[in-house]
Amino acid sequence: MKLKEMSRAQLEAFRDEALREYEDFKSKGLSLDMSRGKPSKAQLDISMPMLDVLNSTSDMKDKNGVDVRNYGGLTGIDDCKELFADLLGVKPSMIIVGGNSSLNLMYDSVARAYNFGVYGGSKPWCKNEKVKFLCPVPGYDRHFGVTETFGIEMINVPMTPQGPDMDTVERLVSSDPLIKGIWCVPMYSNPDGYTYSDDTVRRFAALKPAADDFRIFWDNAYCVHHLKDDHDHLLNIFDEAAKNGNEDMIYEFASTSKITFPGAGVAVICASENNVAHITKQLSMQSISYDKVNMLRHVRYFGNADGLKAYMHKHREVLEPKFDLVVNMLEEKLGALDILRWNAPRGGYFVSVYTEKGCAKEVVRLCKEGGVVLTGAGASYPYKKDPDDSNIRLSPSFPPLDELKQAMELFCISVKLATVTELLG
Amino acid sequence: MKLKEMSRAQLEAFRDEALREYEDFKSKGLSLDMSRGKPSKAQLDISMPMLDVLNSTSDMKDKNGVDVRNYGGLTGIDDCKELFADLLGVKPSMIIVGGNSSLNLMYDSVARAYNFGVYGGSKPWCKNEKVKFLCPVPGYDRHFGVTETFGIEMINVPMTPQGPDMDTVERLVSSDPLIKGIWCVPMYSNPDGYTYSDDTVRRFAALKPAADDFRIFWDNAYCVHHLKDDHDHLLNIFDEAAKNGNEDMIYEFASTSKITFPGAGVAVICASENNVAHITKQLSMQSISYDKVNMLRHVRYFGNADGLKAYMHKHREVLEPKFDLVVNMLEEKLGALDILRWNAPRGGYFVSVYTEKGCAKEVVRLCKEGGVVLTGAGASYPYKKDPDDSNIRLSPSFPPLDELKQAMELFCISVKLATVTELLG
Repeated sequence: MKLKEMSRAQLEAFRDEALREYEDFKSKGLSLDMSRGKPSKAQLDISMPMLDVLNSTSDMKDKNGVDVRNYGGLTGIDDCKELFADLLGVKPSMIIVGGNSSLNLMYDSVARAYNFGVYGGSKPWCKNEKVKFLCPVPGYDRHFGVTETFGIEMINVPMTPQGPDMDTVERLVSSDPLIKGIWCVPMYSNPDGYTYSDDTVRRFAALKPAADDFRIFWDNAYCVHHLKDDHDHLLNIFDEAAKNGNEDMIYEFASTSKITFPGAGVAVICASENNVAHITKQLSMQSISYDKVNMLRHVRYFGNADGLKAYMHKHREVLEPKFDLVVNMLEEKLGALDILRWNAPRGGYFVSVYTEKGCAKEVVRLCKEGGVVLTGAGASYPYKKDPDDSNIRLSPSFPPLDELKQAMELFCISVKLATVTELLG
Repeated sequence: MKLKEMSRAQLEAFRDEALREYEDFKSKGLSLDMSRGKPSKAQLDISMPMLDVLNSTSDMKDKNGVDVRNYGGLTGIDDCKELFADLLGVKPSMIIVGGNSSLNLMYDSVARAYNFGVYGGSKPWCKNEKVKFLCPVPGYDRHFGVTETFGIEMINVPMTPQGPDMDTVERLVSSDPLIKGIWCVPMYSNPDGYTYSDDTVRRFAALKPAADDFRIFWDNAYCVHHLKDDHDHLLNIFDEAAKNGNEDMIYEFASTSKITFPGAGVAVICASENNVAHITKQLSMQSISYDKVNMLRHVRYFGNADGLKAYMHKHREVLEPKFDLVVNMLEEKLGALDILRWNAPRGGYFVSVYTEKGCAKEVVRLCKEGGVVLTGAGASYPYKKDPDDSNIRLSPSFPPLDELKQAMELFCISVKLATVTELLG
């Protein structure tokens, strides 16, 4: 029976039952963490053989004979550029291989644009009275943290299963020259798990910004992170942009953080050759080189992009049962009650759920008191403000399966308790 | 005989002889590079066993049981903080371990101060009509590149064998609130190889800046890079600053770039706990963590600071003969002529020489045409402008000994030729 169709007496009985379940659960004294999209120990163990790839007897030269141990090679070794170029379907000359953090590359890209300007722009972003960014919501909290840090005004754009609402994006981008960028996670979006449709990608690639220094921040964090055989496909935005002469409008980002080691992978910026030349010049003041030894380690470990793609099956083996468990438990425990919406993603790292309006914070609070830390309610919105107090990001990757099951039990109880309490007023 | 004491006829004969030597040398068709302070292949080979320290069977937890492979631990693992704390004579809580590049940490520190401000400062640097930095000259070209990038006005301060001219530093810093920082390489300075005297360090530690957000950028790049048994000693600036309540005024930097692998070492910021807390908060928007696997690799390789210090003898074995060769050849080939000044450093990476005024560019040009690339004349000065066109930075570390000998032969010939040409007018 749907919760909203219950009588007051039925609701009260439901509330009492949920409260009893909650108190029972709380008495177990659990302490579980589902707050971040971290790989589990089992996933980290997959990549341990990578540590054997380079040893004291290894040839430490890249394919061009460059000794990767020394200074230099600011944009990374060619071997690694080719690996990522194949993976992303672009030319190696469009790749800059960075350090261990794509977030850092994104932060730096915003910082450079803010202080010094982008290729083709008439001035640094900071020389405008104000700088604005479009933020498809819900989105990645750390994206919003970067733009907030620079005092950039963030404008919410609704997400749909096909990607951001492109009517809104097109209208705003083409009319307001102070809008300098948009945050996108185009494949298995964080947190909803949606992949932008071909039409959405084409519309992005054909944008006509009012600003001469507008950039799409295309964070392709989950480009090979499939969970199902019938996985999603993302159109190559650079191919589409080329048809409109718009290649300079895009900064794409990717990394091996959720492929090898999150703390010790390699990250890349992918951009037009104009952008790469411009960024390289600015970057030359920032550093002498990133860690080329780790680049070589990754290249030798995977061999090529096909090797890397095949490798992702090992992660899927660990992750898929966890995502299935979450989606199945939501359906089983809450489906009939009709008090929660969610999407069953075919890849990525999250299951995004929507409670009744005004219930998300209370659910997160109940879970925390019951022993399970979730991502904070509202975290997926600029300024941490979910206007509906409805969205919660579930991160099934880190806990082992048995702990995840317990955490989800508490979560479902908390949703029931918070919702019925709200309905009873 | 001193060149300046020669008659015109003697000078002309000297010039003809130098020109003949130069043309002879040029005909050899050499192609050598002495432009950067890069470790040689022999030095890189010293650290190859570090690649065996972590392998697929290793325990990947730090001393606190934290899995170094995953996200998190923004300021680095405690094991690595302790290693550097011991090395620099500070508390581990004063260390942030970063990525592979101390230059990047310095750039980031300037960038954060510029955009967001420093601990205790009333506003971001960029909110002033102008920002100025003191630059002891000659100095490190990449320091000056960072401040130039942010449009910071650079003011030359003369170097002496005891460090920067402290009368000038004190006068400027105490009177001009727009002076926000000073670049220092306090031990085996780049390029002169001078170590700041105890008195100089004490005067730095006792500065009374007019600005409430002034910072000393104390780039201790060569803190353990001794070449002689009777090596230099640098006073601990934090100990001295504590006596004046000035601990917050200092950002110290160090790295293993010239200890293990220049491209794949670890770098640190060392600062007061107030500064560390302030920087950490800003840093949390920039990245999730630096490469903790590489930190663990370094810690396990060295064991502790004493292990690291002892290790530096292996580098000295490679470097000391090169520095001796350079200094001996300068003395032997040019000493009697009295046309070049230099310091024989007891550590670091450079031999800094001073030609007669107006000759440095010509010497570098002659060397280049003869087949040896030197650091550009003027590179060690802000805006690449050496007011005397006199200083040249020699970098003996990279070429093997036999190549270095050839390069130095050409260099000495070029100094003779450029100087006599200048004298003849």
